[in-house]
Amino acid sequence: MKKTFTLITAIQLLSLALLAQEKPISGFKTQNIPKQHDIEQKFDAGLDKANIGATIKELSANPHHLGSKGSKTVAESVLNKFKSYGWNAKIETYYVLFPTPKTRSVQLLGNDQYNAVLEEQAVKEDLATAQQGQLPPYNAWGADGDVSAGLIFVNYGLPADYDKLERLGVSVKGKIVIAKYGRSWRGIKPKIAYEHGAVGCIIYSDPKDDGFVKGDVYPQGAYKPEFAVQRGSVMDMVIYPGDPLTPNTGSTKDAKRIERAGAKTILKIPVQPISYHDALPLLAALKGQVVPADWSGGLPVTYHIGDGSTQVRLNLAFNWDIVPAYNVVARLEGSQFKNQWIIRGNHHDAWVNGAADPVSGLASLLEEAKSIGLLAKAGIKPKRTLIYIAWDGEEQSLLGSTEWVEDHAAELNSKAVAYINSDGNGRGFLEAGGSHALENLVSEISKEVKDPQVNANIFERWKANKAISTTSLSDRKKVIDNQTIDLGALGTGSDYSAFLQHLGIPTLNLGFGGEDEGGEYHTNFDTYDNFVKFKDPGFEYGLTLSQTAGRAVLRLANADVLPFNFSNLQAKIATYVTEVSTLAKQLREGAQSQNKLITNGAYQLANDPKENLKNPPTQVELPEFDFSALNLAVDSLKTASLKLNQAVTAALASNTNADKLNILLFQAEKQLLQENGLPGRPWYKHSIYAPGLYTGYGVKTLPGVREAIEQYHAKEVQEQIAALTSSILKFSQFLKQTNQL
Amino acid sequence: MKKTFTLITAIQLLSLALLAQEKPISGFKTQNIPKQHDIEQKFDAGLDKANIGATIKELSANPHHLGSKGSKTVAESVLNKFKSYGWNAKIETYYVLFPTPKTRSVQLLGNDQYNAVLEEQAVKEDLATAQQGQLPPYNAWGADGDVSAGLIFVNYGLPADYDKLERLGVSVKGKIVIAKYGRSWRGIKPKIAYEHGAVGCIIYSDPKDDGFVKGDVYPQGAYKPEFAVQRGSVMDMVIYPGDPLTPNTGSTKDAKRIERAGAKTILKIPVQPISYHDALPLLAALKGQVVPADWSGGLPVTYHIGDGSTQVRLNLAFNWDIVPAYNVVARLEGSQFKNQWIIRGNHHDAWVNGAADPVSGLASLLEEAKSIGLLAKAGIKPKRTLIYIAWDGEEQSLLGSTEWVEDHAAELNSKAVAYINSDGNGRGFLEAGGSHALENLVSEISKEVKDPQVNANIFERWKANKAISTTSLSDRKKVIDNQTIDLGALGTGSDYSAFLQHLGIPTLNLGFGGEDEGGEYHTNFDTYDNFVKFKDPGFEYGLTLSQTAGRAVLRLANADVLPFNFSNLQAKIATYVTEVSTLAKQLREGAQSQNKLITNGAYQLANDPKENLKNPPTQVELPEFDFSALNLAVDSLKTASLKLNQAVTAALASNTNADKLNILLFQAEKQLLQENGLPGRPWYKHSIYAPGLYTGYGVKTLPGVREAIEQYHAKEVQEQIAALTSSILKFSQFLKQTNQL
Repeated sequence: MKKTFTLITAIQLLSLALLAQEKPISGFKTQNIPKQHDIEQKFDAGLDKANIGATIKELSANPHHLGSKGSKTVAESVLNKFKSYGWNAKIETYYVLFPTPKTRSVQLLGNDQYNAVLEEQAVKEDLATAQQGQLPPYNAWGADGDVSAGLIFVNYGLPADYDKLERLGVSVKGKIVIAKYGRSWRGIKPKIAYEHGAVGCIIYSDPKDDGFVKGDVYPQGAYKPEFAVQRGSVMDMVIYPGDPLTPNTGSTKDAKRIERAGAKTILKIPVQPISYHDALPLLAALKGQVVPADWSGGLPVTYHIGDGSTQVRLNLAFNWDIVPAYNVVARLEGSQFKNQWIIRGNHHDAWVNGAADPVSGLASLLEEAKSIGLLAKAGIKPKRTLIYIAWDGEEQSLLGSTEWVEDHAAELNSKAVAYINSDGNGRGFLEAGGSHALENLVSEISKEVKDPQVNANIFERWKANKAISTTSLSDRKKVIDNQTIDLGALGTGSDYSAFLQHLGIPTLNLGFGGEDEGGEYHTNFDTYDNFVKFKDPGFEYGLTLSQTAGRAVLRLANADVLPFNFSNLQAKIATYVTEVSTLAKQLREGAQSQNKLITNGAYQLANDPKENLKNPPTQVELPEFDFSALNLAVDSLKTASLKLNQAVTAALASNTNADKLNILLFQAEKQLLQENGLPGRPWYKHSIYAPGLYTGYGVKTLPGVREAIEQYHAKEVQEQIAALTSSILKFSQFLKQTNQL
Repeated sequence: MKKTFTLITAIQLLSLALLAQEKPISGFKTQNIPKQHDIEQKFDAGLDKANIGATIKELSANPHHLGSKGSKTVAESVLNKFKSYGWNAKIETYYVLFPTPKTRSVQLLGNDQYNAVLEEQAVKEDLATAQQGQLPPYNAWGADGDVSAGLIFVNYGLPADYDKLERLGVSVKGKIVIAKYGRSWRGIKPKIAYEHGAVGCIIYSDPKDDGFVKGDVYPQGAYKPEFAVQRGSVMDMVIYPGDPLTPNTGSTKDAKRIERAGAKTILKIPVQPISYHDALPLLAALKGQVVPADWSGGLPVTYHIGDGSTQVRLNLAFNWDIVPAYNVVARLEGSQFKNQWIIRGNHHDAWVNGAADPVSGLASLLEEAKSIGLLAKAGIKPKRTLIYIAWDGEEQSLLGSTEWVEDHAAELNSKAVAYINSDGNGRGFLEAGGSHALENLVSEISKEVKDPQVNANIFERWKANKAISTTSLSDRKKVIDNQTIDLGALGTGSDYSAFLQHLGIPTLNLGFGGEDEGGEYHTNFDTYDNFVKFKDPGFEYGLTLSQTAGRAVLRLANADVLPFNFSNLQAKIATYVTEVSTLAKQLREGAQSQNKLITNGAYQLANDPKENLKNPPTQVELPEFDFSALNLAVDSLKTASLKLNQAVTAALASNTNADKLNILLFQAEKQLLQENGLPGRPWYKHSIYAPGLYTGYGVKTLPGVREAIEQYHAKEVQEQIAALTSSILKFSQFLKQTNQL
C-alpha cells in the first residue's frame, strides 16, 4: 500500500514536472496549458509558407488600389478564400470620398524651364512595373490648385526646420516649398508648410535617405531608382482618420456627410510627390544661401535654400469621387463566448501592386485563417469568436477600418476583447507594438516561435539585436537581463487607430523587418519579383508572422482568464510620467539658458556677421508643474493592478469560471479614454497613446500632457495633467471592482 | 598737518584706484602695469592692416615651395623686411631631403580604363591659379613604386575602419586602398594601410567633406572645386618630424646623415592624392558589398567596398634631392636679460602660393616685428631678447624648425623662455593652444584685444561662441561662468613641435578662424584673390593676430616675474589623469560586455545571415590599474604650484628683483620631459603632450599612459603610469626649489 502510494506520488510528481516543463502561458489554468500547446502545434502544421508565397503572388499580380477593378477582384478573392477555409465571410461596403488625379504638373519656369516627368519608369527585368491600371504618383488629400511662386527648400519640413529658416531670415509665405521625405510622416510636411503661409508643397525622396546613397537601386538592389516616387496620403489624420466627410460615423451609403469644404482633414494647399530625377533640376536652380550643414542630401549639387527668384508652377486637380470600399469580414463563432471577439486585420488595398504593403501581411493573415479553419473542421474551435478582416482604403488614411469601427462602435464596445493588426511583413526581427497590458502575452509567444534564419527563438534574436545596437553599457546590461519584449507604443499609420485610440480596445500590431530595407514603399516597384528577391525570399517570415499572430489570436481566444497584465501598463505609465516631468524641467531650463544667452547678447557676439543669423525667439519659461496628484493616481493604479493580478492568479487556481473577471479585464483599457478627447482633436480619446500632432505616425504617450509641454502651453499642461489624473483614477477604480467579484 | 596727511592719503587712494582700473597683467608689479599698457598702445599704433594685406599680396604672388626659386625670393624679402625694421637678421640654411615628383600616374585598368588627370585646372577669374612653377598634386614621403592591384575603399582609413572591414571579411593585403581625406591626419592613412598589408594608397577629397556638398565651389564660393587636390606630407612624423636623414641633429651642410632606406619616417608604399573628379570613375568601378551606412560620401554613385576585381595601377617616382631650407632668423637684443629668449615663429614656405597657409600668419608676424622695431627705435626696448623666425620647409613636416631647434638645442635649453607660433590666419574666433601654464597670460590678453567684427573683446566673442555651441545645459553654465580661455593641448602639425615636445619649451600656438571655411588648403587655389574674398577681407583678423601674439611676446619680454601659472597646468593634469583612469575603466567594461555578447552568441543571432558579418575579435579585458602614486604626485604638484604662486606674488610685491625665480619659472616645464621619450618614439619627450600615434596632428595628453590604454597594452600602462609619476614628481620637486630661493 505504501509502495503503491509512493509510486502514485512519483507519477504525480513526474506529471507535475512535465507540466512544469511546458512553457508557461499566461491566462491558462496549469492543466489547460498542454492542450493549448497541442492546438498551437496543430495550428503550425496547417501553415504552409509556399502557400503564403502563392497568395502574395496572386493578390499582388495587378494594381489594386481603392476603387479600382483590381481591388474588387482582390476583395472577392479574399472573400472566397475565407469561405473556402470554412469561415462565415461577407463583404461590408462603405462609400468613401477618394481623390484621384485629373491634372498633375510641376514646372520649373524661367530660362532653365523643366517639366517634371512625374511618371515612374518601368524596368524591363520586372514586367509588373509596366502594367496598365497603375495610379500615377500623387498625394491624396492635398487641395486642387494652380499656383506659381518662388521655390524654397525646407529640409524635411519639420517645425525645427522652420525655426531655422526664421533665424536665417527666410519666409515661405506665398512660396512653394520643396521638402525631403523622411523624419516625419509625409502629411505633416504640407500641413506645417501651410501653417507658415506656403501656397504649395512638393515632397521628394532624396537619394541620401532613400536612393542610390543607401545602396544599389532596383532591380540590381532594393533601393529607390531615379524615377520612383513615393505615393501616399497627406490627410491631416492626426485630427481624425477615415472618410473626411463622416467623422465619428460609418460612411454607409446613406450616411450623413459634411460638405467637403468643411472637412478639416483635407489640406488647403496642393501637394505633389516627385522623384529625385525630377527634384534635381529644381534644386539645382535654387539660389540664395547655402543650406545649413546637416540639410544637404545626396544629389550632386550644392543645396541652396532659394531666394524666391526660382519660380515654379504647381498645377493639380483631382476627381473627388465617392467610391466603394470593400472590407472583407470573416467570422468564426466562439464555442463558449461568442460575444467576446478577437479581431485580426490587415488591409488588402495597395497604392499599386503592393506585394510587401499590404499583401505580405494579408497572406499571413489568410494562412492563419486557413489553418484555424482546418482546426475548426477537426473540432478544435476557438472558445471566443474570431473576426478576421481584410480592410480596404487603408492607404488613403485608414478609410475601411475607421468607417467599420465607427459603424460598429456600440457592438465593439461591448464585445471586442482585442484587435491584432499587421500591415506587410519582411525579413528580420520581431517588431511588436500595442497595449502594454499585452506585453507578457507577446513575450511568451516570442519565446516559443522559432526564427527561420538562426537557431533561436524570435525573442532571443530580438534581444541579441537590441543588445548589440545598444551602445551605453548600463543600458546594454539592462537589455541582457530583460526577460520581456519591449512593446512599442502605437501612434498611427495602420488600421489599429480606430480600435485603440477611438474606442480603447486593447491592440497589438505585429510584423517582422529590419533586414528587408528597400525603396519600393508606395511605388510601382513594390512587386512580387521585388519581394521574393529582397523582402522575404522563401516567405519564411510570412510563416513566422502567421505563427506569432496566430498564437496571439488563439491564446486570447482560448484563455481561461484573459492575459491582460495591467502591472506592465502601470509601469509604462509611471515611466511616461517621469519622462514628461523631466521634459518639462529640461524645456524650462533650456528656455532659461537660451533666454539668458539672448539677453547677454551671446548670439549676436557669436554670429558670423556675414550670415546675419537672427536670434532665436525668446522662449516661454514653463513654470514648475504639480505632478503630485498624477503620481498618486499612478501609485493607486499600481495597487489596483497588483490586486487584480492576485485575483487572476486565484481564479486560475480555482475551478470556478472567471466570466465576470474576463469581462472586467477586456473592458478595462477603455476606462483610459477621455470623453472629450485630446485638445483640438476629440476623435482621439485614449489618454495614453496618440499620434503626434507634429509627428504624424510617430507616437506621443500621455499625449495631452506631453504635447502641451512641447508647445509651451503652461495652462493646458495643468489642465491635461488633471484630465490624465482623472483617467488614471477612473481606470484604477475600475480595476478595483475585482474586490466585489 | 592732519589735513595734509588726509589729502595725501586720498591722493594715494585715488592712485591705487586708478591702478586698480588698469586691467591686471600677470607677472608685472602693480606700478609697472600702466607702463606696459602704454607700450602695448604704442605697439598697436604701429600696426597697419593695409600693410598686412600688402605683405600677403607680395609674399603669395608666386608659388614658393621649399627649394624653389620663389621660396628663396620670399626668404630674402622677409630678411630685408626684418632688417628694414631695425632687427639683426640673417638666413640660417639647412640642407634637407625633399622628394619631388618625377612620375605620377593613377590608372583604372580593364574595360572602363581611366587615366587620372592629377592636375588642378586653373580658373579664369584667378590668374594665380595658372602660374608657372607650381608643384603638381602629390604627397611627399610616400615610397617610389609601380604597383597594380585590386582597389579597396577604406572610408577614412582609420583603425576603426579596418576593424569594420575585418568584420565584413575584407582584407587589403596586396591591395591598393582608396581613402577619404579627413578624420585623421593624412599621413596616418597610408601608414595604417601599410600595416594592414596594402601595397599602395590613394587619398581623395570627398565632396561631402570638402567640396560642393559643403557649399559653392571656388571661385563662386570658397569650397573645393572638382579638380582641386590637397597636397601634403605623409611622413610618419609621429615618430619624429624634420629631415628623415638627421633625427636629433640639425641637418647642416656637413651633418652626418643616415641612409634613406633606414629612415623610419619615410613610408614603405606609394601614396597619391587625387581630386573628386578623379575619384569618381574609380569609386564607380568598385564592386562587391555596399559600404556601411556612414561611409558614403557625396559623389553621385552607390559606394562599394570593392571585391578586388577592380584593378588599379599606381605608378610614382620621386627626385630624392637634398635642397637648402632657408630659415630667416631676426633678433632684437633684450635690454636687461639678453640670455632669456622669447621666440616667435611662422613658416614662409607654401605648397603653392599659400596666401592663407602660411603667408597670412607670417604677415602678422612681420607686422609685429615692424611695430616692435619702431618702439625700439623710440627707445622702448624689450627687457628680454626677441627672436622672430620665418621657417622654411614646414609643409614637408616641420623641416626648417625641427633642424634649427635640434641644431641649437643646447642654447635653447638654457635660454628659451617661450615659443609663440602661428601658421596662417582667418576670420572668426581665437583659437589658442599651448602650455597650460600660459593660460592666464592668454586669457588676460584676450580680454584686452578687440574683435574687429563685433563690439566685444576676443575673449567675450570666444566665450559666446562656446556657450552657443554647447548643447549640454550644465556644460553651458560652466562656460558662462568661465573667466579664462580654454587653451587647447597641442599635438603637432606646425613648427612648435620641436620646441614643446622635444625640448619642453613652453609654447603657444595662436590664430583666428571658424568663419573662413573653404577648400583651398594645400591647393593651387590658396591665392591672394581667394584670401581677400573668403578668408580675411580687409585683413582685420591679421591685425588682431598681431595684437594678440605681439602682446604675448611683449608681456613675456617685459614681465617682472614670468607669467607662468603652474596651478593651471596642475589642474589640467589632474583632469587628464581622471580621463585616462575613466578611459581604462570604460574600455575594461566595454571589453567585458562585448566579450560576453560574443560568448553568448549574440552577434551571430543578431547578424543578418545574408551579410555574414564576422564577430568582432575578443577584446583584452584590461586589469584595474593602480593610479594611487600618480594621484599623490598630482597632489604634491598642487601644493608645489600653490607655493610657487605665493612666491611669485611675494616677489611682485617686493622691491628685490626676481632673477632666480624667473630662471626657475622658464626652466620648469622641461622637467616634465621623459629622458627616454615615449615608447617607440624617443624624440617625443614631453610626458603631457604628444601627437597621437594613430591620430597624427590630433593631440594625446598623458600620451604614454593614454596610448598604452587605447592599445590595450596592460604591462605598458603600468610602466607608463610609473614613468609619468616620476616626471610629475620631478617637476614638483623642481618647483619646490622656490623655498630655497
